[in-house]
Amino acid sequence: MPWSTISGSWNSPRVDLVIDMGNPFLNRSVDGFLKIGVVGATRVAAEEIYHCIRKGHASKNQAQEALKNMCKEGAYWGSIAGVYVGMEYGVERIRGTRDWKNAMIGGAITGGLVSISTGKSKDAVFIDAITGAAIATAADFINQLT
Amino acid sequence: MPWSTISGSWNSPRVDLVIDMGNPFLNRSVDGFLKIGVVGATRVAAEEIYHCIRKGHASKNQAQEALKNMCKEGAYWGSIAGVYVGMEYGVERIRGTRDWKNAMIGGAITGGLVSISTGKSKDAVFIDAITGAAIATAADFINQLT
Repeated sequence: MPWSTISGSWNSPRVDLVIDMGNPFLNRSVDGFLKIGVVGATRVAAEEIYHCIRKGHASKNQAQEALKNMCKEGAYWGSIAGVYVGMEYGVERIRGTRDWKNAMIGGAITGGLVSISTGKSKDAVFIDAITGAAIATAADFINQLT
Repeated sequence: MPWSTISGSWNSPRVDLVIDMGNPFLNRSVDGFLKIGVVGATRVAAEEIYHCIRKGHASKNQAQEALKNMCKEGAYWGSIAGVYVGMEYGVERIRGTRDWKNAMIGGAITGGLVSISTGKSKDAVFIDAITGAAIATAADFINQLT
């Protein structure tokens, strides 16, 4: 009698939404906005779920507040990522090479723009640009290591 | 008469320090510590130089303070990067695959460890782990986009 075998596999859910804006610069920015926006919103969701479990109950008001925070943080993370991805791509096209300096320049522009958009002073904008450049460079280096 | 040409090229300085600890896990961690430590220290240096230019003068005390801050921030950035790179590598070895989930798990462990080391409460450690996971996942996604 032949043996019958049962085999199964499990894959984590994978959603890939592609929106074609007809321009590689815009495509990347929108892609970055959506993907990182989802990560930012998920972070808030995970935090809110943890708080609910700790307290042992959840109210309708809390759920509404959580949803509002998810949208807010998702839009914030997404905007920063969208600007960064677009800038990094632009710098790469202008410079014609791919290295950590693209990340540094892209990070500096993004840090400065985010700072300007929140109405900070000239000094703070410059400091935020430096911080943005440092974070983007560090992320690029870490990416090369892993 | 033949033409004589002069050609020149300029390369940005490149320093690569490799320390072999005899273990791939440790090698990566030390590499991450050094590289990201330098980035963190450079950030402080750039900030201090900007402040000096704005004020128009620099004192010996300020220079000492700047050096102290550079060492402090370099060590802080380096430690976080070293732990993250090591953890990400460890997770990759255990799971046997390379995807964004390694970054997420590595980020969560790093966020939690950093939080524990600064003596935060259990709740804060969990929230920091969630934030670490979100930041690492976002950085991994951005890296795939750029």
